[in-house]
Amino acid sequence: MAGQRYFVGLDVGGTTMKAAVVSEAGIPLTAPVTLETRPELGQDVGLQTMCETIRRAVTVAGLNLDDISAIGVATPGLMDIKAGLILDPPNLKPWKNVPVRDHIRAAFGKPTAFQNDANAAAYGEFWVGAAQHARSMVLYTLGTGVGGGIISGDTIVEGEHSHGGELGHMRIELPDRGRLCGCGARGCLEAYASATNVVRRTREDLAAWRGPTRLRDYFTANDDELTAKLVFDLAAAGDELALKVVDDTAYYLALGACGAIAAVDPEMVVFGGGMAEAGEDFRVRIENYVKKFGLPFPARSVKIRLAKLGSDAGFIGAAGCARLLVSAA
Amino acid sequence: MAGQRYFVGLDVGGTTMKAAVVSEAGIPLTAPVTLETRPELGQDVGLQTMCETIRRAVTVAGLNLDDISAIGVATPGLMDIKAGLILDPPNLKPWKNVPVRDHIRAAFGKPTAFQNDANAAAYGEFWVGAAQHARSMVLYTLGTGVGGGIISGDTIVEGEHSHGGELGHMRIELPDRGRLCGCGARGCLEAYASATNVVRRTREDLAAWRGPTRLRDYFTANDDELTAKLVFDLAAAGDELALKVVDDTAYYLALGACGAIAAVDPEMVVFGGGMAEAGEDFRVRIENYVKKFGLPFPARSVKIRLAKLGSDAGFIGAAGCARLLVSAA
Repeated sequence: MAGQRYFVGLDVGGTTMKAAVVSEAGIPLTAPVTLETRPELGQDVGLQTMCETIRRAVTVAGLNLDDISAIGVATPGLMDIKAGLILDPPNLKPWKNVPVRDHIRAAFGKPTAFQNDANAAAYGEFWVGAAQHARSMVLYTLGTGVGGGIISGDTIVEGEHSHGGELGHMRIELPDRGRLCGCGARGCLEAYASATNVVRRTREDLAAWRGPTRLRDYFTANDDELTAKLVFDLAAAGDELALKVVDDTAYYLALGACGAIAAVDPEMVVFGGGMAEAGEDFRVRIENYVKKFGLPFPARSVKIRLAKLGSDAGFIGAAGCARLLVSAA
Repeated sequence: MAGQRYFVGLDVGGTTMKAAVVSEAGIPLTAPVTLETRPELGQDVGLQTMCETIRRAVTVAGLNLDDISAIGVATPGLMDIKAGLILDPPNLKPWKNVPVRDHIRAAFGKPTAFQNDANAAAYGEFWVGAAQHARSMVLYTLGTGVGGGIISGDTIVEGEHSHGGELGHMRIELPDRGRLCGCGARGCLEAYASATNVVRRTREDLAAWRGPTRLRDYFTANDDELTAKLVFDLAAAGDELALKVVDDTAYYLALGACGAIAAVDPEMVVFGGGMAEAGEDFRVRIENYVKKFGLPFPARSVKIRLAKLGSDAGFIGAAGCARLLVSAA
């Protein structure tokens, strides 16, 4: 067991999957190898692609499989984390009941960790990212949906049914008044603060807006042109309506975070994903709303941070889970 | 270390404190010894009373201090759990920065655990109560306030600032619309579902109610006569308005529970405290709303239960924390 240990982290998404070798210190040896997931080709092809991505990551790093101590795989839910199974995730159709962990373990003969992708990203930020020196943290991933992960000590809150940290589906409003979420329920944070819903709220606000705004140029355009990124960019450039939408988004995210804080009282709340790249002004807005609307004692002390690992958090975190597995054994 | 081990659990409340010796199997050897807390006499008297309650509990059990392996003390917040300090809890005025754990440890020369009272009650129900065979659980204590505790494995979610499991202050409605909570914020679950707020909602509903209801007999009476218990009793007797208030209470509690489920996805959610004694009909109402409004996958499987230990949960849980302390050492 002398010398450096290496781990492969694989992050499987609906469009692409990526993997890299990560050192014991949490540093990727190379940029990740990226292959198309193409779930429509079926789960057998999917499992082959996972193995191929892992193999190439090892090769690109100039290593042999013998140098790898363990492998970690992160996938989107629905899943059974304890059983190592993908169940039937909406963005990996038509996959169903895929025994990912056992397949990878058998293919490579290595200890294999299996984790939800948002949990893995949270663990990545906890291990070597924004929350590196925190004892506990909550991560929000802001994308087309709002994902989440909760870490306490070196433990990921997986939940009893693999649904721990579903922070996008904590409600911020009563179901009879709340906005409709992609999950079918009303009032979920995701229905307000995902990129898709930032665009929706922008369109609604625009319809009622009487002042000047560059957003009006996009009103008649299709959804591909009016993006959350555009709204955040225009806000940064001083557009008043865009600024309102951004501020409302910070407010909604803060209300979600206040719920998570009341539940688990973490040392730090981290915001990652596309919108978090809006930067410090956005972070400060969220922080101010948390301090205004959170339980005074923990809200005064909780640290609000932006994620540091970008889209690498998932595979780095998956590698971290592999390391945990071997360290615990 | 041969033979049975015994622990003293002490539960300190604003009005009374109670203690009993509890066996290794979680069984109290006697009914608890109860003394008045009388916080107004100051914290030195308070600490003396705690010691006296513990001593009497040991005597009543027919044991000597030598028979006691460890002591557990539960107190209401605000507190610093890690430091073993009571800070300045509203219902223990004028106590401030009371070093409870160190004082008790020095007075008896025993390992001493210190815990928030709702967390201790949760641990009691987890150890030998409603959640005895669960791997993880969330407890709601329904009284003048709404308290909470979260247990996962044998770990209490204390939080980084001793505020884990503040489930009564998770919001169920936006702050600009929500009911005003005792904590000063708006929209907290407690502002809807505590006994005090059940009475308030009853008065509001009554003002708008046109049908028959026995509650009208209490409309002009003072608050002491219109109690949450009365509302639940009248509901059990078929009073339509009382039934509406009870059903609304179940709805609000379920919405709170849905938030906790999305955050930590426990195996079981337990409801304790006065209102929970309303029994099976109330439990079923909460369960139905959880299934209707919760994330489908975990809400389908989560178990909704009523607490089993009644007001003994606190001191039993405190004794359980003492046992954990010694087992971990």
